[in-house]
Amino acid sequence: MTRQIVDVNGVRIGEGFVFIAGPCAVEDEALTLEIACAVRAAGAAILRGGAFKPRTSPYSFQGLAEEGLKILQKAGRAAGLPVVTEVMDSRRHAELVHRYADMLQLGSRNMHNTPLLRELGRMRKPVLLKRGMSASLEEWLQAAEIVRAGGNEAIVLCERGVRTFETHTKNTLDLGGAVLARERVPYPVIVDPSHATGRSELVGPMSLAAAAAGVDGLMIEVHPRPDRALSDKEQQITPRMFARISAGVRELLGGMAAEPALARP
Amino acid sequence: MTRQIVDVNGVRIGEGFVFIAGPCAVEDEALTLEIACAVRAAGAAILRGGAFKPRTSPYSFQGLAEEGLKILQKAGRAAGLPVVTEVMDSRRHAELVHRYADMLQLGSRNMHNTPLLRELGRMRKPVLLKRGMSASLEEWLQAAEIVRAGGNEAIVLCERGVRTFETHTKNTLDLGGAVLARERVPYPVIVDPSHATGRSELVGPMSLAAAAAGVDGLMIEVHPRPDRALSDKEQQITPRMFARISAGVRELLGGMAAEPALARP
Amino acid sequence: MTRQIVDVNGVRIGEGFVFIAGPCAVEDEALTLEIACAVRAAGAAILRGGAFKPRTSPYSFQGLAEEGLKILQKAGRAAGLPVVTEVMDSRRHAELVHRYADMLQLGSRNMHNTPLLRELGRMRKPVLLKRGMSASLEEWLQAAEIVRAGGNEAIVLCERGVRTFETHTKNTLDLGGAVLARERVPYPVIVDPSHATGRSELVGPMSLAAAAAGVDGLMIEVHPRPDRALSDKEQQITPRMFARISAGVRELLGGMAAEPALARP
Amino acid sequence: MTRQIVDVNGVRIGEGFVFIAGPCAVEDEALTLEIACAVRAAGAAILRGGAFKPRTSPYSFQGLAEEGLKILQKAGRAAGLPVVTEVMDSRRHAELVHRYADMLQLGSRNMHNTPLLRELGRMRKPVLLKRGMSASLEEWLQAAEIVRAGGNEAIVLCERGVRTFETHTKNTLDLGGAVLARERVPYPVIVDPSHATGRSELVGPMSLAAAAAGVDGLMIEVHPRPDRALSDKEQQITPRMFARISAGVRELLGGMAAEPALARP
Repeated sequence: MTRQIVDVNGVRIGEGFVFIAGPCAVEDEALTLEIACAVRAAGAAILRGGAFKPRTSPYSFQGLAEEGLKILQKAGRAAGLPVVTEVMDSRRHAELVHRYADMLQLGSRNMHNTPLLRELGRMRKPVLLKRGMSASLEEWLQAAEIVRAGGNEAIVLCERGVRTFETHTKNTLDLGGAVLARERVPYPVIVDPSHATGRSELVGPMSLAAAAAGVDGLMIEVHPRPDRALSDKEQQITPRMFARISAGVRELLGGMAAEPALARP
Repeated sequence: MTRQIVDVNGVRIGEGFVFIAGPCAVEDEALTLEIACAVRAAGAAILRGGAFKPRTSPYSFQGLAEEGLKILQKAGRAAGLPVVTEVMDSRRHAELVHRYADMLQLGSRNMHNTPLLRELGRMRKPVLLKRGMSASLEEWLQAAEIVRAGGNEAIVLCERGVRTFETHTKNTLDLGGAVLARERVPYPVIVDPSHATGRSELVGPMSLAAAAAGVDGLMIEVHPRPDRALSDKEQQITPRMFARISAGVRELLGGMAAEPALARP
Repeated sequence: MTRQIVDVNGVRIGEGFVFIAGPCAVEDEALTLEIACAVRAAGAAILRGGAFKPRTSPYSFQGLAEEGLKILQKAGRAAGLPVVTEVMDSRRHAELVHRYADMLQLGSRNMHNTPLLRELGRMRKPVLLKRGMSASLEEWLQAAEIVRAGGNEAIVLCERGVRTFETHTKNTLDLGGAVLARERVPYPVIVDPSHATGRSELVGPMSLAAAAAGVDGLMIEVHPRPDRALSDKEQQITPRMFARISAGVRELLGGMAAEPALARP
Repeated sequence: MTRQIVDVNGVRIGEGFVFIAGPCAVEDEALTLEIACAVRAAGAAILRGGAFKPRTSPYSFQGLAEEGLKILQKAGRAAGLPVVTEVMDSRRHAELVHRYADMLQLGSRNMHNTPLLRELGRMRKPVLLKRGMSASLEEWLQAAEIVRAGGNEAIVLCERGVRTFETHTKNTLDLGGAVLARERVPYPVIVDPSHATGRSELVGPMSLAAAAAGVDGLMIEVHPRPDRALSDKEQQITPRMFARISAGVRELLGGMAAEPALARP
């Protein structure tokens, strides 16, 4: 099996270790620009940010919608980073997001949304396919197959924790599942330690763990003032912490160069 | 809290015990008509049937699409039953289904699909809101609140099993969760024992259990020749078995009339 | 498969529907006597009560130990009810409990305790085998097989809820699993709605549900003043409520007499 | 919080990174000696091996019992390694194991066995406390507290995977839970990737991940001919693979020396 390289506007996921970073939600232009520059300086290759926040409660902050997409694109261009953001529902929305984003994220809550998967299969931009919160490995890979069957093979899988009985973490990171997925299909696999744990103090350790286990990258939520974030504040880390994690991961991967077969079985 | 009655073309869910029955998928016209007449004779008040089957594998039978909607509507009219069927993605699809169905089903895989929930909130047809396969009670009720916030209060909740470690059943029926939901919100709550167990031999016992626990109805998959069904054949029951379950439930509820406060706490 | 009847000092489990009731923990003699008389009057056939409470926290009430066994036995004799209580660890403890109890309960936390299962297999008193909180159906039946392999076939299985992601209930009652267990092995199967839900308001509905699904009995925690109970106060019900549930179940079962094949598939 | 160092016959767990390795079960003397020498050469500091195998099925290999303890002790002495093995039930068994082992393992299935936890609390040998397969973080730490309350503070916690809906791995490694446990209590925390995944090909990646996340050691099952192992053959790795993992972990930890605060938050 030849491993697939997914090219996101020049950033080649699957070739080296890639960091995707940015705020949970795009809150305003100044803040998004600040974060974009900070994460780029700290080693991120792609900027993330949510414009549509399908929050469980109808009364929480719901995102800036198209305005958020414009801000994200602008911030990405200013910082020289491609951007990835979430597509919410079928064709209409996918086309809107397609206009602004370099990579289309299919969120956890939509992993079983077959029509949307097919829509992404027809598009010509890379897809970031998050695992559903209680999707089995098999179901996750079948979702990828729906995208591929539509003609789009530029797929990156993202493990973001599964739902278990444990309540001290938001989800339980299934790192073994991420490694198994990587063995089964040729697509790059990355890990989202922010959603997987829901706790900022675990983002560092889980990032190092994921890198050591041999995945292709990380997606991390970064906010300069996490306590003022409009969504998921417990899991955001500061740009300074992100820089330390990014450096720590690079150091770790440098030190592991002599034993690549073990880390990437 | 005054309990809500949801009127589906004259069938008043929440007033008496209601059976919704029909095939997993609409396979062809003759078969659908046969099932519609059979379930009506056996006590069903509403006909169900899937026209779009968002199967996990892209290579399984995917449903007859609009042709299936037409057949379902025709069969419902022939048998004198309102019909309910699943809406898959946002506006476009909801509008299509809206043209043919008397009640719009929001499936398990879409319970977290906020844009679609909002779309249903704007419509003027009753909504059957299935619980997500790993949705907490809270998330399920919040999904209902998104529909209600859009202006549509004709909501019926449907518990269809949650995902657990147990593999002998397709899901684990959370009957306690169904009863708790009924205590928290005024909407009728029904149970789908077909998907909750995935085993035809458990449909009868779980139907009786649900009725005894005090829910407002059942949704059951019926097929005259389960072994030839194009989808989910292990959980389909025959019209004859459905008639026995329907009679058993009515008998059980008749016998419980003297102690209504316990069954409906 | 001939269904097994388990005789507990004259009470024949598996022949008719049996209620086992009593306090979570034996707290003192007067209270235990009061409860024993009350549950007997309300239809219980066996008295339950814990003398050793292996609480998760080392600082909670731990039970009265042998003193509790004596009180339980005395209360059972006064009310004319056989008693069942939990065995905690291997031989030594099993022998102690064996001296006072008519039926030996193997608790959820010990379902995987093979040496203790073997010990019970060598004893000549009926065993009440609770399902482990995350035991698969298969593991549960294998635990029963360890007891049987030791020479003791007087086994009653008890489903008491499994651990899931849902936090509104203490556990999730797996009624489908209880019915499946009953199909696979000849032993009677009962349900414990108190531990399965952890909520007193759900004990009634789940009792009716279990009876309707066709199990052989119920084990229910009863305390005259639940808010003053020394353990698990949220799930205790009053003798008055127990009497209503007992009457409701008998009424339900009476009404179902005409359709026994469905309820007991 | 001062981190605790647990001394196992001179091996100081919590001071450096420690490998515990050995066969799932002690099968015979020659094999055990072979494994002991091999894992020592490959960097293990403690020898593990099961003498009593409380298998779920009563008809599987059940271990060599006291004969197995003698062989394990002999092999440990020959290789110059302290030994750890599992205690099955209360006092009697604990005392037997105490005679031969340098560290007493409390297995996953006994984590809720309060009398046994108390027994270990009274003993004067270090305890290896495995997390129950569906124990919450809180319950796991409370089990440790029961041991400590008995007077024994020489506790090492071991995360070994939790039970989830995923069936491709035996359990799901909860690495975030291991790191959180390490933050909450002063005891060393190690990880058992063999039981956590149940797949030999995942033992390497999860070992590196655990080391990178900052835990204090690993417990790994090693067998020279995994396909002939009498128990759990899918998860055993060869001594040669163990040597590669051990070297890979040391290299990784060496490279991380410059950023210790992140790896051990």
